[in-house]
Amino acid sequence: MKPLVSIIMGSTSDYPVMEKAAKFLDEMDIPFEVNALSAHRTPEAVESFAKNAKANNIKVIIAAAGMAAHLPGVIASMTSIPVIGVPINASLDGMDALLAIVQMPPGIPVATVGINASLNAAILALQILATDNQAYQAKLTTYKEGLKDKITQANRELSEIKFKNKTN
Amino acid sequence: MKPLVSIIMGSTSDYPVMEKAAKFLDEMDIPFEVNALSAHRTPEAVESFAKNAKANNIKVIIAAAGMAAHLPGVIASMTSIPVIGVPINASLDGMDALLAIVQMPPGIPVATVGINASLNAAILALQILATDNQAYQAKLTTYKEGLKDKITQANRELSEIKFKNKTN
Amino acid sequence: MKPLVSIIMGSTSDYPVMEKAAKFLDEMDIPFEVNALSAHRTPEAVESFAKNAKANNIKVIIAAAGMAAHLPGVIASMTSIPVIGVPINASLDGMDALLAIVQMPPGIPVATVGINASLNAAILALQILATDNQAYQAKLTTYKEGLKDKITQANRELSEIKFKNKTN
Amino acid sequence: MKPLVSIIMGSTSDYPVMEKAAKFLDEMDIPFEVNALSAHRTPEAVESFAKNAKANNIKVIIAAAGMAAHLPGVIASMTSIPVIGVPINASLDGMDALLAIVQMPPGIPVATVGINASLNAAILALQILATDNQAYQAKLTTYKEGLKDKITQANRELSEIKFKNKTN
Amino acid sequence: MKPLVSIIMGSTSDYPVMEKAAKFLDEMDIPFEVNALSAHRTPEAVESFAKNAKANNIKVIIAAAGMAAHLPGVIASMTSIPVIGVPINASLDGMDALLAIVQMPPGIPVATVGINASLNAAILALQILATDNQAYQAKLTTYKEGLKDKITQANRELSEIKFKNKTN
Amino acid sequence: MKPLVSIIMGSTSDYPVMEKAAKFLDEMDIPFEVNALSAHRTPEAVESFAKNAKANNIKVIIAAAGMAAHLPGVIASMTSIPVIGVPINASLDGMDALLAIVQMPPGIPVATVGINASLNAAILALQILATDNQAYQAKLTTYKEGLKDKITQANRELSEIKFKNKTN
Amino acid sequence: MKPLVSIIMGSTSDYPVMEKAAKFLDEMDIPFEVNALSAHRTPEAVESFAKNAKANNIKVIIAAAGMAAHLPGVIASMTSIPVIGVPINASLDGMDALLAIVQMPPGIPVATVGINASLNAAILALQILATDNQAYQAKLTTYKEGLKDKITQANRELSEIKFKNKTN
Amino acid sequence: MKPLVSIIMGSTSDYPVMEKAAKFLDEMDIPFEVNALSAHRTPEAVESFAKNAKANNIKVIIAAAGMAAHLPGVIASMTSIPVIGVPINASLDGMDALLAIVQMPPGIPVATVGINASLNAAILALQILATDNQAYQAKLTTYKEGLKDKITQANRELSEIKFKNKTN
Repeated sequence: MKPLVSIIMGSTSDYPVMEKAAKFLDEMDIPFEVNALSAHRTPEAVESFAKNAKANNIKVIIAAAGMAAHLPGVIASMTSIPVIGVPINASLDGMDALLAIVQMPPGIPVATVGINASLNAAILALQILATDNQAYQAKLTTYKEGLKDKITQANRELSEIKFKNKTN
Repeated sequence: MKPLVSIIMGSTSDYPVMEKAAKFLDEMDIPFEVNALSAHRTPEAVESFAKNAKANNIKVIIAAAGMAAHLPGVIASMTSIPVIGVPINASLDGMDALLAIVQMPPGIPVATVGINASLNAAILALQILATDNQAYQAKLTTYKEGLKDKITQANRELSEIKFKNKTN
Repeated sequence: MKPLVSIIMGSTSDYPVMEKAAKFLDEMDIPFEVNALSAHRTPEAVESFAKNAKANNIKVIIAAAGMAAHLPGVIASMTSIPVIGVPINASLDGMDALLAIVQMPPGIPVATVGINASLNAAILALQILATDNQAYQAKLTTYKEGLKDKITQANRELSEIKFKNKTN
Repeated sequence: MKPLVSIIMGSTSDYPVMEKAAKFLDEMDIPFEVNALSAHRTPEAVESFAKNAKANNIKVIIAAAGMAAHLPGVIASMTSIPVIGVPINASLDGMDALLAIVQMPPGIPVATVGINASLNAAILALQILATDNQAYQAKLTTYKEGLKDKITQANRELSEIKFKNKTN
Repeated sequence: MKPLVSIIMGSTSDYPVMEKAAKFLDEMDIPFEVNALSAHRTPEAVESFAKNAKANNIKVIIAAAGMAAHLPGVIASMTSIPVIGVPINASLDGMDALLAIVQMPPGIPVATVGINASLNAAILALQILATDNQAYQAKLTTYKEGLKDKITQANRELSEIKFKNKTN
Repeated sequence: MKPLVSIIMGSTSDYPVMEKAAKFLDEMDIPFEVNALSAHRTPEAVESFAKNAKANNIKVIIAAAGMAAHLPGVIASMTSIPVIGVPINASLDGMDALLAIVQMPPGIPVATVGINASLNAAILALQILATDNQAYQAKLTTYKEGLKDKITQANRELSEIKFKNKTN
Repeated sequence: MKPLVSIIMGSTSDYPVMEKAAKFLDEMDIPFEVNALSAHRTPEAVESFAKNAKANNIKVIIAAAGMAAHLPGVIASMTSIPVIGVPINASLDGMDALLAIVQMPPGIPVATVGINASLNAAILALQILATDNQAYQAKLTTYKEGLKDKITQANRELSEIKFKNKTN
Repeated sequence: MKPLVSIIMGSTSDYPVMEKAAKFLDEMDIPFEVNALSAHRTPEAVESFAKNAKANNIKVIIAAAGMAAHLPGVIASMTSIPVIGVPINASLDGMDALLAIVQMPPGIPVATVGINASLNAAILALQILATDNQAYQAKLTTYKEGLKDKITQANRELSEIKFKNKTN
C-alpha cells in the first residue's frame, strides 16, 4: 500500500522524538513512510523526494529538524503538498528551530507545531487527510473523546488525595 | 455559495493584517467568510461557531489573535477541522502570541504560521483544500510560478545598479 | 463544608507543583477543592465549572497550566470570580506559560503569579478572602511573621560559618 | 468618602498608561486615590503608605512600575492587602518590569497583569472587592456584557467588507 | 573581468542593507556580482548558482536573508566555497534570521556576521581573498588604519564640548 | 586640575546618551575627562589609556559601548581601577551590549549599570569616590534628597487630576 | 575589628554561590560580615541595616538575590554606600534576577556583576576599597598576576595533547 | 612544520568542546597549533599572538570563548587574518557568548559559527584555506560526500523499524 503521509527527519537521533508521530499514524491505520533526509547534507535527495511526492501519492509531509532547521521550509519550497514542521529541541530549548521553521517568508508556509510536538504533527496530518474523508473524521472524533478520559482519570487520582479541608 | 474557509479574528483592529488572507482566497476563487469572535469576550459564540463548522461545510479555519492568543487553540479544542493560527504582533514583537498559539498540549494541534503571516495562512488553507482537488492544485502551481517572477524582477533591478567593479 | 477556593489543573502531572497550594490552604483551614480540567480536552467541563462556580460559593479560583496555557484565561472569560493563574514550567523554562497567562486582552484579567509559584497563588487567594474577614487577616499576619523566622534561622546558620576576617 | 482602591505609580510619566485604571474605577463608582511613590526615591513614604493602608480602609492596591520594577513587591512585603502589579513598558518592551514584578519569592505574591494593562488591573481590583458584594458583582456582569458589544460591532464592520468570494 | 565575490539576496528590499557591502568591494577594486535568488521561491536557480560557483571562479559568497533565513545555509550545502551569512532584520529585531543562519548543523558552516552587518561581510570576504594575496593584505591594512581616523575625529569633537569641570 | 573620572566611549554617536553622565559630574564639581577610544579600532590607544590611568590619578572609569560591547571589559583587564560599564542600545534593545558587558569571566569584574543608564554610571562613580570623602558624601546626600522632590511634584500633579470618585 | 564589606543574601540557600566572595575577602585580609536579610520578609531589618551601614563603617555592600531580585536596589535606595548586586540563578537561567537588579531607575545605581558572579563582586569591592589605598592596590596587582598563571598552566596542559599535525 | 591554523581558547575547560576542531584538522592533514590565551587575563599575550600571527604564517585563527566572549573580537581588532569565533555555552545557553562574538561593530568582522560548533569552525577554516588550493578543495569534496553516508546509514536504521502501516 502506498503511503499517504511521509515523515522526514535529519538523522536517527530525531527518531525518539518522532516515534510518537509514527505510533499515532500506525494506530489510526494511516499508511506512512519514515525517511532520513538532510537539507544540508543530501540536498539532491531532498529535492528528488519533494518533487516526486505528489506523483507518489503523498498527501501530507511531516518534517522535523533542529537548530537552524531548514528541512521543512526547503521541502515546502519544492512542493505544494502541505508540510508540517516539527521544531526539535537540539539547542537553545528549541527556540532556534521554532523560529527557523515558523518564520517563513510570504509565499511558502510551513504548518508549524510546538517544540518536539511530533504527536500533534501526526494528529494535524490526519485532520488534513480527513478534510474530505468521513472515515478519518470518525477516527478523529473517537481519538478526541479518548483525550477526555485522561482528565477523568486525573480527577479520580486527585480525588484520592486527602486533606483536612479538602472537600472533594 | 457556502464558504470553505472561515477567517476568524478577535477584533477589527486585526483586519489590516488579515486582509491579505482574504485577498488571496478571493483571487483564488475560494469561497470564504470573515468573522470577529473573541475567545475571552464571546466564548459562547466561539463554541457555537466551532461546533457547527463541520456541519456548515467549513474545511479549514484561519484564526488570528494577539497577546495571550487563545482563540486558535480554543477553536481547535472544539472541532477536528484543521485550524491555522496566525500570531498577531500586538505586544512583545508578537512572541507572546506565537508561543501562546504554537505550544499547544498533546492532542490539540494548531497549524501555526509566522507572526502576522496572514498570506501564508491563506496559502496553507488552499494547500489543505487541494489535497484531493486537481483544480486547486493547478491554482497553487500557477501561484508558485508567479513567486519566481518577483525574483526575476528583483534581478533586473539589481542589474541596473552600476559599480566600477560590479560585473553584472 | 463547601469549598471557598477551587484549584484547577490540566493533569495530575501538575500536582507535584500545585501541592504547596493545597497544603497552605489546608494549614490555614480554608475549605478548598482540587480538580483536573483541560481547556483543550474538556472544554465543556471547564465551561460548566466556570459558570457554576459563583452559585457553588467559590470565591477564588487558582488555575495552573503549562505551555500554551489557556486554562486560566478561558475560565476568567466565563466568570467574574477572581482567577489566579500559575504558569507551569513544562517547556521553555515556563516563559511560554507565563506569557500565555499574563498577557490577557483588555477586559479579562488573570492575576498571575510566578512560574511554578503555587504557594504564592494560595497566599494571594487567602489575601483576597481576607479583604473583609478579620479572622483571615489574623492568619495572614501570623503567617507573615513566620516568614521572618526563616531569615533569623538563616542568619544563625551564617553566623556559624567562620573565616579569619569574618567579623560576625 | 474613603478610598477602597489605591493606585500607586512611580512618576507622573506613568499616568498616561494608568489613566485607564482610574477611569474604570470612576465609571464603576468605586472610590479610589492616586499617588506617586517610589520604592527607590521615597522608601519611607512607601513604608508609611503600606503600613497604614489597612487602617485607612484600603482594600486593594494597584502598583505600577517600569524597568527594575520593585514598587509592587516592596509594598506587598509590608501589607497583607492584595497588591496588583502593572509592569510598565519603559525599556526592553516591558519584559524587565514583568519579570521584576511577577517572579516574587515564596511568601509575598503580587497579582500581576499584562504589560501596561492598567485597565485589567482595575477590573481585577473590582473582582476582588466584589467577592462578598452583590452590587459590585452586578456591575461586573454588566461590564462583561458590554465587552460582547465590541465584538458585535466588529462583526458588523467586517460584514461590510465585500469580496467576490466572501460569503458573509 | 570575472567576479571573485558574489552577493546574493532574496529580494531588492534587502539592497539598502547590502549596499554597503557592494560599495566596500567596489572601493577595494574587487570584482563582484549582485544577484537576487530565493531559497524558497527559486530553489533551482539557487542550486544552479551554488553548483557552478566554483567553475565560475567565485571565491567567496555573501548571502543575506531575513526571517527563517535559509539562503546562506542552503547555498553552503551545495558548495565548498566559504559562505558568509548576513542576517537581515525583517522581524523580531533580526534574532530569527541570526539563529536560522548561525546555528547550522555539524558539517555545513556558515560564517555569520552581525544583524544587518553587510559591511563586515564584505570586509571578511576581502580577508578571505587576502589569505594568499599580498596586494589585498595591503588594502586591508590601509583600511584598518582608516578606522582609527574616525576615533581621532571623534576625540576632536568630544574635546570641543566644554564643561566647567571637564579637563580635556 | 587633573581628572578623577574618565568617561570613555566608542564614538561621538554615543555622546547623546553619555551627556547625562558628564552633566552630573560637572554639577557635582568632580573633575573629569571625556574621550573616544575603541576596543576594536584603536586597541593600542585603549591599552595606553588603561595602563596609564592609575599614574594619571584616574580613580574611576566609565566606559560605554554598544553591540558586542568589549570596551569596558578590555579596559578592566588592563587596570585595577574600578570600571563602570554602560551598555548602549545600538541593536537588540541593548541586550547584546548588556550581556557582553555584565557576563565577565571570573577575575575581571565590570560594574554594570542599566541599558543607556549613563546618569546612574556617574552617580555610582561619585559613590565610589565618596567612600573615604566626607564632602562627596554630603553631595550625594543632598542629591538623593532632591530625588524625593520629583515625587513630591508628581504627587502634586496627580492631585490636580479630578474624577468623581477620586478622593485625593 | 569592624567589617569594611557587608555581604547580604536572602537565605542560606544562596551561600554556596556567595561563598567565593567570602573566601576572596578572607584571603585578601579584608574584614567583612555575612548576613541574611530579605527585602520582602524582613523589610524593617533591611532598612535598619542600610541606614546604619555608614555609621557602622561599612564601605561597600554586596547584595545577592534571585528571581524578582529587589534586595540590592532596596538597599541602594537607603544608603549612598556603593551597592554591588549579584543576580542569583534561581529561575529562568538568572535573567529575571539580572534584569531586576541592573535596570534600576535614574538616581539609584546598583553596580551589577554577572549571574552568580560572587567572586567578581568581591574583587570589585576590593577595587573600590583600593581607590585611595596603596596596600589594597598592591594586593589587587598580585591577584591579577595570579590570574595569568592559570592561563600558563592551561597552555602547559594543552601542549601535552598530541596530534599528528599539531605543531605545539 | 609551521601551523596554518591557530586554535585559541580561554582555558582548558573549553578543550572538550574544541577537541572536534583539532581532530578534524588533524584528519585533514592541516598543520595547526592549540593555545590558551585570555582576552582578560593575558591581554599582552593576546596582543603578541595577534600581531605576530601573519609573520608566523598563520592563515586562519579559530577563537573560542564563553560568557562576555571578547577573545575573538579582540584578536580580530589586531590582525587582518580571518578570525572564526566559536561561542562556548558557559551560561545562558550560550546566548551571551553568541551575541558578544557576532554583533561586532562595523570594520572588525568575526566569522561566527554556532554555539559550541567547533567542528564547523574547523571546516570553515579549511574552506578558507582551500580558496586557492586544489588539494584542499579535494579534501573538502571527499568530506562532504562522507556526510551523505550518515544519512544513508540513518535511512537504513529507520527502514528497520517496523509498524503495521509503515510502508518502507
